[in-house]
Amino acid sequence: MLWIDGKPCETVEPLDRGLEFGDGLFETIAVLNGAPRLLDAHLTRLAAGCERLGLSAPPREQLAEDVCAAAATPNTGVVKVILTRGAGGIGYAIDPSRPVRRYVVATPARRSAPLAGARVALLPTPLQPQGRLVGLKHLNRLEQVLLRRDAVALGVDEGLVADDRGHVICGTMTNLFVVHGGRVSTPDLTRAGIEGVMRGALIAHLAHAGTPVQVRPVGVDDLRNADELFLTNALVGVWPIATLDDCRWETGPVSARLQAAVATW
Amino acid sequence: MLWIDGKPCETVEPLDRGLEFGDGLFETIAVLNGAPRLLDAHLTRLAAGCERLGLSAPPREQLAEDVCAAAATPNTGVVKVILTRGAGGIGYAIDPSRPVRRYVVATPARRSAPLAGARVALLPTPLQPQGRLVGLKHLNRLEQVLLRRDAVALGVDEGLVADDRGHVICGTMTNLFVVHGGRVSTPDLTRAGIEGVMRGALIAHLAHAGTPVQVRPVGVDDLRNADELFLTNALVGVWPIATLDDCRWETGPVSARLQAAVATW
Repeated sequence: MLWIDGKPCETVEPLDRGLEFGDGLFETIAVLNGAPRLLDAHLTRLAAGCERLGLSAPPREQLAEDVCAAAATPNTGVVKVILTRGAGGIGYAIDPSRPVRRYVVATPARRSAPLAGARVALLPTPLQPQGRLVGLKHLNRLEQVLLRRDAVALGVDEGLVADDRGHVICGTMTNLFVVHGGRVSTPDLTRAGIEGVMRGALIAHLAHAGTPVQVRPVGVDDLRNADELFLTNALVGVWPIATLDDCRWETGPVSARLQAAVATW
Repeated sequence: MLWIDGKPCETVEPLDRGLEFGDGLFETIAVLNGAPRLLDAHLTRLAAGCERLGLSAPPREQLAEDVCAAAATPNTGVVKVILTRGAGGIGYAIDPSRPVRRYVVATPARRSAPLAGARVALLPTPLQPQGRLVGLKHLNRLEQVLLRRDAVALGVDEGLVADDRGHVICGTMTNLFVVHGGRVSTPDLTRAGIEGVMRGALIAHLAHAGTPVQVRPVGVDDLRNADELFLTNALVGVWPIATLDDCRWETGPVSARLQAAVATW
């Protein structure tokens, strides 16, 4: 089911700048028992993204209502929100008078959770630096589409990607955490990558628990030497890595504890 | 007017991967007297883009028919073609069984040609390297949208952008040519930029005329020292640069000759 600007729709207006140029943002929100998970965090990221791209953000309460209504429809497992600059402007140039257009889509759950441990590989193609788009969940995701295709071709559950300096940044659709000697760290995303809502929630959770996450450059050796590795996103929650090439891990205590915590959110 | 997969439409299906991820390509084709200009070159670039992205290209004859029919509708100045991977797949993952979806849109002319000399500025934000997306006219154009906004904010007609190594690559919506001592050169696009159809046509035209274009790294000093500078795209053709900061140029003989040539295409 689809709502555009709050109204139920079956089709959309052509030549939305979202389709033409990827001129917008999105959120993929997990729905559990008819309610959106981490809604506040998703809305906060969306508002911050609007600020950075110069989109006039819809009122937060309106978006929250839209998402909750969509989440409450039967069999919904995921609510996707897309905000675009709508139609208008000449070529790339923006018409600043146009209001933002909001799409809200309710879809069934994509997969069952929790998943078995992920089989991952490091993909050979580097992630490009993102400049001022870094961190944003914007609609320009062709790079991720091709990386995901590479991971599927390798027959792994997820592909890890490093930037042009060899720093491991993330998975094709996930953020990455590394546990070593009881300390949890996650790649620095100042040059590339998406600041995942689940990543942010886990960083906040661990800080609150007195075990702050270290955000730092992560090398491939850090992965091989890790006690535990896990992937995160809004839909899978915490997804332990089981294999990376010839390295193998059982689900470790930190991963298991965080999986249990996320299950209560 | 809009046609999707050859059928006249007023609205489009939601959650096309073009909107969700920018998973596709486009062409912006000038229409003169009811006929598309440089149609062969546009179709050739589109086919090459499909090959690189793994989209199953529609038959060339079908696309040509679509574009010619759109171009022949009254008051059409531009035909835009968008090819996307359509709906389907889970998240970023591609469903390879889905056929490509083709949008063809006829719109009025955007501006009158020829334009007066362009007032340009070098924009401060670098163009990011494009990795394996380089050169493609794909739907991930948020970087260009923001750069265009920067140019508009500066009050110039077009903004020039350099990459992170200081090489000038292009304008926000144009390619760039430099004339110095009778030789014509254009920035090398192996790291960033779009391989414009008008750029390619001019390179071929000048090679045929016995004055081959040198494709090379271009520095800011090369611009200041140039005898002539001009911008190109499918819609404006050849657009001489009149001012860059405190540098000024009259339209030179090479630019004028190429403008005259393009007018006959």
